[in-house]
Amino acid sequence: MPHEPFDAVDVIRAKRDGLALSDAQVDWVVDAYTRGVVAEEQMSALTMAVLLNGMSRVEIARWTGAMIASGERMDFSGLSRPTADKHSTGGVGDKITLPLAPLVASFGVAVPQLSGRGLGHTGGTLDKLESIPGWRAALTNDELMAQLEDVGAVVCAAGAGLAPADRKLYALRDVTGTVESVPLIASSIMSKKIAEGTGALVLDVKVGSGAFMKDLATARELARTMVDLGMDAGVRTVALLTGMATPLGRTAGNALEVRESLEVLAGGGPDDVVDLTVALAVEMLAGAGRPTPEAEVRAALADGRAAATWRRMIAAQGGDPDAPLPVARERLDVVADRSGVLARLDAFAVGVAAWRLGAGRSRRDEAVQAGAGVEIHVRPGEPVEAGRPLLTLHTDTPERFDRARAALDGAWDVADDAGAVDAAPLVLDRLG
Amino acid sequence: MPHEPFDAVDVIRAKRDGLALSDAQVDWVVDAYTRGVVAEEQMSALTMAVLLNGMSRVEIARWTGAMIASGERMDFSGLSRPTADKHSTGGVGDKITLPLAPLVASFGVAVPQLSGRGLGHTGGTLDKLESIPGWRAALTNDELMAQLEDVGAVVCAAGAGLAPADRKLYALRDVTGTVESVPLIASSIMSKKIAEGTGALVLDVKVGSGAFMKDLATARELARTMVDLGMDAGVRTVALLTGMATPLGRTAGNALEVRESLEVLAGGGPDDVVDLTVALAVEMLAGAGRPTPEAEVRAALADGRAAATWRRMIAAQGGDPDAPLPVARERLDVVADRSGVLARLDAFAVGVAAWRLGAGRSRRDEAVQAGAGVEIHVRPGEPVEAGRPLLTLHTDTPERFDRARAALDGAWDVADDAGAVDAAPLVLDRLG
Repeated sequence: MPHEPFDAVDVIRAKRDGLALSDAQVDWVVDAYTRGVVAEEQMSALTMAVLLNGMSRVEIARWTGAMIASGERMDFSGLSRPTADKHSTGGVGDKITLPLAPLVASFGVAVPQLSGRGLGHTGGTLDKLESIPGWRAALTNDELMAQLEDVGAVVCAAGAGLAPADRKLYALRDVTGTVESVPLIASSIMSKKIAEGTGALVLDVKVGSGAFMKDLATARELARTMVDLGMDAGVRTVALLTGMATPLGRTAGNALEVRESLEVLAGGGPDDVVDLTVALAVEMLAGAGRPTPEAEVRAALADGRAAATWRRMIAAQGGDPDAPLPVARERLDVVADRSGVLARLDAFAVGVAAWRLGAGRSRRDEAVQAGAGVEIHVRPGEPVEAGRPLLTLHTDTPERFDRARAALDGAWDVADDAGAVDAAPLVLDRLG
Repeated sequence: MPHEPFDAVDVIRAKRDGLALSDAQVDWVVDAYTRGVVAEEQMSALTMAVLLNGMSRVEIARWTGAMIASGERMDFSGLSRPTADKHSTGGVGDKITLPLAPLVASFGVAVPQLSGRGLGHTGGTLDKLESIPGWRAALTNDELMAQLEDVGAVVCAAGAGLAPADRKLYALRDVTGTVESVPLIASSIMSKKIAEGTGALVLDVKVGSGAFMKDLATARELARTMVDLGMDAGVRTVALLTGMATPLGRTAGNALEVRESLEVLAGGGPDDVVDLTVALAVEMLAGAGRPTPEAEVRAALADGRAAATWRRMIAAQGGDPDAPLPVARERLDVVADRSGVLARLDAFAVGVAAWRLGAGRSRRDEAVQAGAGVEIHVRPGEPVEAGRPLLTLHTDTPERFDRARAALDGAWDVADDAGAVDAAPLVLDRLG
């Protein structure tokens, strides 16, 4: 056994007592945890101390670097295209990656979207794409590179080689109540994005009931921390703070969201989904050194350029872009009990309902239903008519309707007129 | 698998966010941890949150009760004698239990001293007594009861049946930097003492460099918390706050401390050891309903009554009270480099030196040396002569001398006259 330069208890005590950890302490504790020398119960005590006592910018950067150093780094410098990536902190109905990746790629920028699966009330991008018959999430690094060079857009599962310390740490934080820490969230996200080797990165930091961050101040702190980490590591990083009080678009669920994404790629779709897709695309193209006017980006949705890239992207991973999407076996309408204007539709409640209908999972090894989810007929600001459907619930297993319906109790307000509708813009702030 | 009424992550989050845990949450989390349903890494995150965010008096009492409920409770009500116990938070040279238990028993009070072994720089009472040839620490409950009835004094190993939750939790806190929490220390000590079933309890809460608590305010908070827990549970509890800036007496080590205890039982010994033994005995006798003047307690040391009980106590557990005590094979004198008055002798440094000489252990399964330790020739306030021994180091393994000597660097000050000597009394405060 090699001699260890530090003792785990001393490192825990230092952070517990409000001290900053030294570079050497951070490097050691992350590495020793990855090697199993620092035990799970020791790391959980340390992460709780970090959550309660914080980390300085210097410590966060070092911690992120140590997580990167725990695994491999990818290198996209051999590609003929510049690279740009997007990361969302997760929301309800957040299918933006689906139209965004082919849209940006259609301008000659490579978009490597190494994604995850859903857990809890927010859906996972891979779960959504897996509702397309034949599509597979797992690619080798060589396949990823070839597709990036050829098609430009790839959405695939992140390999186990990137930041394995983060993988282990995230699983621990999930069961020990230590997820909600800005330093730990920022270093978790950015270690994977920096190790992935993207040239530019746009962060979509969600704020509101359906997001991880419920208030703007904390979301801004997280965004600032991640932008600093990215810039310090040589990644051109921008963050948009965007609203997640209400679901994005008119669907939450896997195949339901693919269908809506296809509408956007066909030049239609809900305004908020289109607007956010375009806003993020403009940032990604600028970050990749291909600044493009917003009107031209919108044109690529309307004229079929983005849709053509989508078809190639899906086909390259075994998917049939023309195959019919799965449809849930059972549906249940949720109707309005009064007429007026929809003033509020709570994103968290809709996310939980979709999850309970089978669109999401509670454990990592659970399967999801491709067709399950929530269809939204009326969005905030739109008229409601008593007795007419507000939402339709979709599932293969109708015994789930009751608990999904229960999640929606109190999830919306109907007002007499549009004056009561929250008029906050979708993009709340931009940090660069 | 039974349905669990709570989720560990919710309980951790509540304490993390500064909320008080409900009675039901406390009962469940302690019980579920004992059953292995709450994992080690979850409990360590919770204990770190408790350390940093605290617990209310109500929570501490409930937590203590839950730890008691995790195991058996003893019952001394069948004895013909009242019971009184003493607990010290641990110090250097703290051999007080050895003369104290037979002294109090010689007044007709039963003293059940369920003790532990040393870890780190403070010695363990069982380690000290095990230097007596033949003496054994393990007794069955029946043997314990019979000896309490017959001899009155028992010092033995605490059985595994008392507060098993605390046993498991203490081992976890030891490796996760979560020892130094007043609520967790208080509940750990008091759960065992209340489960043990003593009628009266005197707490010796040490303060100073050689103690766990370095400052008076924290020591007082710990003492107050423990006294409240004891009184609420129907145990007549008193705490003395006593100084531990300098070692107790003139020895630190196993057989060395037994020898000094025998001097006290023979009516001699260092003043501080005698004074503290008498002060604690007076409190224990009063708590047990046998109030006794201090002069009479002192007389029982001088006239051999306590010594007679000591001989019966040692013999009842297989020890030979007349057998020669082990002596270390090697000695090294540490001499003064100037003359004057010893102004300070640091308890922590002497404790670490004794530990490094072989009197203590670093791991629970390590053996200790019976003869190892530090002999103190000059105590604070006494004259020092340049070139004359201040201390003598004892060990069977002379390669340990260097590291023991290093621990003593800067451990004492010599002043020109007695004006520089700290004149704080041994007993700093009393809480009842």
